[in-house]
Amino acid sequence: MIVAVWMAELSERSGLPVPTIKFYLREGLLPPGESLGATRARYDETHLQRLRLIRALVEVAQLRLDVVRSVLDGVDRARSRHEAIGIAHARLSSAPETVASEQSLRAVDGLLERMGWQLMAQSPHRQSLARALDAIASLGYPVGDDLLDAYGHAMGEAAEVELDQLEAGDRESAVEHAVIGTLLLEPVLLTIRRIAQVNASHARLWAT
Amino acid sequence: MIVAVWMAELSERSGLPVPTIKFYLREGLLPPGESLGATRARYDETHLQRLRLIRALVEVAQLRLDVVRSVLDGVDRARSRHEAIGIAHARLSSAPETVASEQSLRAVDGLLERMGWQLMAQSPHRQSLARALDAIASLGYPVGDDLLDAYGHAMGEAAEVELDQLEAGDRESAVEHAVIGTLLLEPVLLTIRRIAQVNASHARLWAT
Repeated sequence: MIVAVWMAELSERSGLPVPTIKFYLREGLLPPGESLGATRARYDETHLQRLRLIRALVEVAQLRLDVVRSVLDGVDRARSRHEAIGIAHARLSSAPETVASEQSLRAVDGLLERMGWQLMAQSPHRQSLARALDAIASLGYPVGDDLLDAYGHAMGEAAEVELDQLEAGDRESAVEHAVIGTLLLEPVLLTIRRIAQVNASHARLWAT
Repeated sequence: MIVAVWMAELSERSGLPVPTIKFYLREGLLPPGESLGATRARYDETHLQRLRLIRALVEVAQLRLDVVRSVLDGVDRARSRHEAIGIAHARLSSAPETVASEQSLRAVDGLLERMGWQLMAQSPHRQSLARALDAIASLGYPVGDDLLDAYGHAMGEAAEVELDQLEAGDRESAVEHAVIGTLLLEPVLLTIRRIAQVNASHARLWAT
């Protein structure tokens, strides 16, 4: 069922000021409403949902607007949830400019093999991960296989719970699944990681 | 042992162009070297290490320079590793502008209680996490306690391995521990998460 919504209601229900919504319309981030003459247009629930998604990407995931546009453009065209996740990743993680060391690339390949994971040839993740390992190693703290494995097992288990929750949601959009699963859960995970670190560090401080 | 290093060598060994290093000196991100007249100065290994740290924060953690400065300023003054971790967190995660819902705050408190974790009163994490949960719920996908618990257990176990690795590193600096543990491992974890998601999603696609 499509329920008509005027601009004022769109603003009230999305929590965004009218000028911001008009800016998103001009920039093509929000599709136009149904025009009713030169100065009036009618919107529906899909506009409201898209505004909430843009707002979450800007405020929670802290993406720049050009990145928001690129992600939404890409995943809008995806034909399946799986494809949408792949496109969202590719738009977000460009391969780093510097080429990673052979040693770090071997460490990544080792992790993939131990976890039984595969990557498509064009995936940016292998280079990105190896480059991140290089940066830490250059500071004198090489990342060991045991930490990579700890992250691998942790994220493998989390991915199953993440997919279960997304599939149980009210909504059916592949776009939203990809964006929420990839981006909006990141701040949740990272904040929980920080809380876990403070508590682990505190426990060690008092144990010594 | 302090080994003298000239600007050209600083550039070569850090991989950063001379003008970039001079910019960091002018901006106060890099402490000045030992002046030998109007146009020459001598640096040492601590300058090189600081440059590598700045480079990693900019290129890998993708922080803006003003954030890099704030993090380094804060953690340089910390008196222990534990305090440095707390300061690094506080400089990075400002409390969100919008106040989180009571429901999400209760979900965060529930997680803390189940995990046996505590937060200091001034910590921004409780509001940040609840606000991130609100954003996802507003899109029709409430985050369940089972996903919070999955993240909590995963990050609690990872924190122990992270602390072990940092304590085994060559270096002794509390600054570097805090920055690497908090920031530079984030891209490693998030990239592994994306690889895990693609593989879990792919496995479900073929299982149906």
